[in-house]
Amino acid sequence: MKVVLEGEEKEIETVWMEGETVKLIDQRILPDEFKIFSAGSVEEVAFAIEDMVVRGAPAIGATAAYGMALAKMLGREMDVAASILKDTRPTAHDLFHAVNHMEKAIQEGLDPASAARRYADDITARCKKIGMNGNNLIKDGDRILTHCNAGALATVDFGTALAPIRAAHRSGKGIFVWADETRPRCQGASLTSWELLQEGIPHAIIADNAAGYYMRKGEVNLAIVGADRVAGNGDVANKIGTYEKAVVAKENGIPFYVAAPASTFDFSLSNGDQIPIEERSPEEVLVIRGKNIAPEGAEARNPAFDVTPAKYIAGYITEKGVLSSEELIMLSE
Amino acid sequence: MKVVLEGEEKEIETVWMEGETVKLIDQRILPDEFKIFSAGSVEEVAFAIEDMVVRGAPAIGATAAYGMALAKMLGREMDVAASILKDTRPTAHDLFHAVNHMEKAIQEGLDPASAARRYADDITARCKKIGMNGNNLIKDGDRILTHCNAGALATVDFGTALAPIRAAHRSGKGIFVWADETRPRCQGASLTSWELLQEGIPHAIIADNAAGYYMRKGEVNLAIVGADRVAGNGDVANKIGTYEKAVVAKENGIPFYVAAPASTFDFSLSNGDQIPIEERSPEEVLVIRGKNIAPEGAEARNPAFDVTPAKYIAGYITEKGVLSSEELIMLSE
Repeated sequence: MKVVLEGEEKEIETVWMEGETVKLIDQRILPDEFKIFSAGSVEEVAFAIEDMVVRGAPAIGATAAYGMALAKMLGREMDVAASILKDTRPTAHDLFHAVNHMEKAIQEGLDPASAARRYADDITARCKKIGMNGNNLIKDGDRILTHCNAGALATVDFGTALAPIRAAHRSGKGIFVWADETRPRCQGASLTSWELLQEGIPHAIIADNAAGYYMRKGEVNLAIVGADRVAGNGDVANKIGTYEKAVVAKENGIPFYVAAPASTFDFSLSNGDQIPIEERSPEEVLVIRGKNIAPEGAEARNPAFDVTPAKYIAGYITEKGVLSSEELIMLSE
Repeated sequence: MKVVLEGEEKEIETVWMEGETVKLIDQRILPDEFKIFSAGSVEEVAFAIEDMVVRGAPAIGATAAYGMALAKMLGREMDVAASILKDTRPTAHDLFHAVNHMEKAIQEGLDPASAARRYADDITARCKKIGMNGNNLIKDGDRILTHCNAGALATVDFGTALAPIRAAHRSGKGIFVWADETRPRCQGASLTSWELLQEGIPHAIIADNAAGYYMRKGEVNLAIVGADRVAGNGDVANKIGTYEKAVVAKENGIPFYVAAPASTFDFSLSNGDQIPIEERSPEEVLVIRGKNIAPEGAEARNPAFDVTPAKYIAGYITEKGVLSSEELIMLSE
C-alpha cells in the first residue's frame, strides 16, 4: 500500500518477514504514529495477533503463516506452534486456514519462509482480483458506505472491501466513501480514514449511528464490507455493527456487498450461527484512548463481531467474481 | 432524581431557579464530576443550552422557561430574550413550546418565576404519568434497550424513556437495561448509566453497533427511547442512531416505543422530514474526551438527530396513555 512517510511515498505491506523476524505495521498506534512491530518468536507473533498489532481476517492469516514459518526455522514443534497461534482469536477463518495450509506445506518439505511468502503474495493477488471484480459494481459518482477497516491493513495489501474502492478511484471514477468510525476500537476512523487519505480518496468519517441517516436520505448508493468468516450458506461474521448496517441498507434498497477471498469462507459450517463470536474486554467500550466515558462501577458488554444472514447480502465480491450465496460453493476447493 | 453525593442521598432536579439565577446540573462533565452551573443572564442561559450544559428536549424547554422568567425579572425585552433562546438549537420542539408558553404567561401578567416553576413542575408531573403508563408495558424479566439519555437529566425529573424503567424497577419488577453508548457524545455511557447506577437498576453499556447483535440473539424484548420532536403523523426526530435501532427492532419483532410529553409534539408539521436536523461540529466525532481518534486532515460529518418514520414505532408513551400514531391528535390542545 502507498504510505506517505515524511513527505515520501513508499510501498509497504501490512506484514512481512526479514530473516528470522516477522515485521508488522503496528495498528494499535495508528494514525498517531507509524511504527513497525518486530516478532522474533511464535509467542510474539501470537501476541501481535491477540493484542491486535494486526487485525483483519486475511492479515491475521498471513501473520499466522509467517508465524508457522518462523516456528519451523527456530526448530519449534509444529503442532505446538499451530496451537499457540490458533488459540489467539476465535472468529477469523483465515487464521485456521493459514495455519493448516502451512502445516501441510512444511510436512511436504517446502522451504517455510518461501511458503509463507507465497501465502501472503497469494492473498495480495486475490485482493487485486477482488478489486477488479468489485470495480465493475461501482459507477462514477457513487457514494459508498464501508464499516470497520477491510483495507490493505486488514490483508497484506489492497484490501478486501477497500480493494474495489481503490480500483474505482485509480480508474478515474469520482467516488465518495462514508467511513463508519466503528466503535469500540474505531478502526474506521483510525485505519480506513488513514488508508483513504494516503490514496487521496474523498471520504467522511461518521459515527456508526449516522449510517442509517445518510442511507435514508439517499446519500449512500452502495455498501461494501469485509468478512471475518463466511459460512457455507453465505451468512457473514464481520465486525460488530455490520448486521445493523445490512438490515438498514436492505430497508432502503441499497445493495450491500461482502468482499472476501476464499480463505475467509468456512464450508464446514452450514450457517452463521455456528461461527464462534469473540467477546472482548469491557474496557474497550468504557475507556477510549485512555479516557473513561462511563461512571465508575458501570458495566459493559463487548461482542467483537456479529452475524449477518445471507438474505441481507446482495453478493460476495471474491477473486472468482461477484457471486451469489448459491454460487459460493465454487470457492470450496 | 436520586443523586448519591459523598455517600448521602439527595433529591435534585436537572434545572431550577434560585433568586435571579438559573441553576443546572452541568451535564458536560458528568460522570467525572458533579457540579452545578449558574446562569445569571439570558445569554448565559442560552449558552447553557447551546453548549449542552443541559440537553434533552423537555429539559431544554424547562431551562428556556426559566430563561424567559429571568429575562422578565432583569427587565429585558421579552421578544429579544425569546429570540436569543430560540436561536440556540433547532431540533427540540420543547424549546419553542416553552418560550411561547412563557411569553403568553408574562403577557397575562403572571409572576414570571412562579410561571416558570409551574412549567417545570408540569413537566415532572407529565413524566411521572409517562412512567406509570409505560410501566404497564413492562413485564418482570424484561430486557429493555434504550438509546441516548432520555432520563431525569433530559427532563426535570424522572425522565421520558427512563420513567417507565424507573417505575418498573421501583414496583419490584426485575428488569435489565441495555444502554447504547450513543456516539458521538456518549450520553448513554455517561448519563444514562450514571442515572441507572444512582437507582441501582441493572444494566450494561454497549457500543451502538452491538444493539442489533443483542436484538437478533433474542436478548432484547422491548425498546424505549425519548424524542426531540414528533410530527403530527408520528414521525420522530430523536438522537442520531434511533432510526437504525428502530428498523432493526422491527426486523426482529421487538416493540419500539417512543416516550414523550405533549410539549415535544409539533402538530404544525405533517411529517418528520419537515423537522430541522441540527448538524454539529465534526470535532465531536474526531475527538473523544480530548483525544484524536482519526488522522490529521480527516473530515467528518455529524448530524445530531435522525427521523424515524411512524411505521417503525409500536406506540407513544405519553402522559395521556400509550397512544398509536392515529391517536396522537388528542395531545394537541
